[in-house]
Amino acid sequence: MSIRDLPIPDLFERAVEGDRRALGRLLTHIERENEHAAPIAELAHPLAGTGHVVGITGAPGSGKSTLTGQLVKLLGELGLRAAVLAVDPSSPLTGGAILGDRVRMEDVASPETFIRSMATRGHQGGLALAVPGVVRVLNACGYNPVLIETVGVGQVEVDVAGTADTTVVVATPGMGDGVQANKAGLLELADLFVVNKADRPGANDVRRDLDLMLDLSHATGQDQRTGLRPEIIMTSALTGEGAPEMWEAIERHRAAITANGQLEQRRRDRDVVEVRNRLLVAAERRVDELLSAESHADLLDRVAARSVAPATASSEIAQQLH
Amino acid sequence: MSIRDLPIPDLFERAVEGDRRALGRLLTHIERENEHAAPIAELAHPLAGTGHVVGITGAPGSGKSTLTGQLVKLLGELGLRAAVLAVDPSSPLTGGAILGDRVRMEDVASPETFIRSMATRGHQGGLALAVPGVVRVLNACGYNPVLIETVGVGQVEVDVAGTADTTVVVATPGMGDGVQANKAGLLELADLFVVNKADRPGANDVRRDLDLMLDLSHATGQDQRTGLRPEIIMTSALTGEGAPEMWEAIERHRAAITANGQLEQRRRDRDVVEVRNRLLVAAERRVDELLSAESHADLLDRVAARSVAPATASSEIAQQLH
Repeated sequence: MSIRDLPIPDLFERAVEGDRRALGRLLTHIERENEHAAPIAELAHPLAGTGHVVGITGAPGSGKSTLTGQLVKLLGELGLRAAVLAVDPSSPLTGGAILGDRVRMEDVASPETFIRSMATRGHQGGLALAVPGVVRVLNACGYNPVLIETVGVGQVEVDVAGTADTTVVVATPGMGDGVQANKAGLLELADLFVVNKADRPGANDVRRDLDLMLDLSHATGQDQRTGLRPEIIMTSALTGEGAPEMWEAIERHRAAITANGQLEQRRRDRDVVEVRNRLLVAAERRVDELLSAESHADLLDRVAARSVAPATASSEIAQQLH
Repeated sequence: MSIRDLPIPDLFERAVEGDRRALGRLLTHIERENEHAAPIAELAHPLAGTGHVVGITGAPGSGKSTLTGQLVKLLGELGLRAAVLAVDPSSPLTGGAILGDRVRMEDVASPETFIRSMATRGHQGGLALAVPGVVRVLNACGYNPVLIETVGVGQVEVDVAGTADTTVVVATPGMGDGVQANKAGLLELADLFVVNKADRPGANDVRRDLDLMLDLSHATGQDQRTGLRPEIIMTSALTGEGAPEMWEAIERHRAAITANGQLEQRRRDRDVVEVRNRLLVAAERRVDELLSAESHADLLDRVAARSVAPATASSEIAQQLH
């Protein structure tokens, strides 16, 4: 029987047993948010409570793909069955370069590693729904850790990295990264900072800037979210230097949030955020349904004719959301 | 009677008669989305159908603030009563520089010009609601044109610039602006391109790049929205060179979209988008109400306990949106 024709429960069983093609197919259903997505989520959710989810984010050019590759290589050597979810900007302009990185990552990864690229566009309901769904299935199939690599630029990408158990922010000398990280809200997200390209001049300046910002945010209470002060690790993704220290720091963070109850809280929050994001998609659909309803055409005509203000029209229509 | 104590209709009347303090107070109500915002919108909407709304956007450093200042100076000389709505990024890091630009703009503007700065954060319901409300009141008080200056970076800022009657995208040599504009979706928005710093080397390259991209988008039908090919104007904001040509091109665009019915359609679309944005805010509020309802606590607990998947929980709650 071809894998294409397998019922979802059988496909899921095969994926859990280690069939990578079956897993790939499950993930495609999840990404497409098609009719199989909900049944797959129901099967995966009970099994998905254990793996460690690590977000790795940073500005373009920070070397985070190469660094993720080094980490993946190390995890293979440690005998861990890791998965990487690489969230690509969908721009055809940068697609080529990113594909290059992917190929390099597959070169260094152990055969047990599962690598999946995901475009940032083309998901019904958006990345914010697709990523947790994919992570859930990877967890359920025994991949641990699951690394989510995203470019720290758009709000969505930042949000996605921020829903991990441990979020690593990669900075680099010569990019004014301290300031950049702060602007993009990455500072508040980081559980761990990595200063990559540590052999370059200015690496220690970046370290000092980050330290200073952590002092400030500590003073103003910004990192009371965890009560932990993020460590700063120096790496060189090209040589692999610092990758073991990075992994140890990730493990330390995990141990700390497990001990203080944060891990459980984060996972609970992550599920609530997913429910909320799904509800927002449903609500938007409902709004568009109301706007295009025959019964409201006259009201919108009156807005265009300037006899009713938009705020008034919206209040009237909004009553049907209840 | 102090202006603070005036009833809204009286305050509105004063603003229409030219009282700038009264106008400032109205705008504060609108920005705060407080209980006076809807009555003010009702008063302003019938009067707001005539002024020309011009969006001016571009990357940071493109000189669009200085260029807007030159345009404002010119409009004063032409005897036009212009208003500028400058949408500032709220980052305290860049706030200083922008304030500097504002001061310069006020130096060159005629006393009749009304200049308002708006932070990008801190608006209930967001910039997408506050901007059309402010523009409506400025129009109703006889300001024409109303220039909206936004930094072409975030999606919201781009959206705001895109709801103008005429959207001007400012590019600059040496920033790879052609590519930048394309990435940010600015290319599709532009009714008019301005290549600023035209005295710098590379200005003609930028012009050629933009021309090429317009050829491509024309070939693929991208600018069928208006049927008009955007003009490309060369300016030097520092000397003021090109500002009259820029204004003439804006006027030509206005005349063209008035003639082909686009102007009316754009305004209608803008109102519908505002109604929709307001409905989305109401819908989000409703979603949060449902999520925090006592009756759903048990369902969310079951999600946390991994016996119900988030998608299933969301479908169940979503039924109450109807």
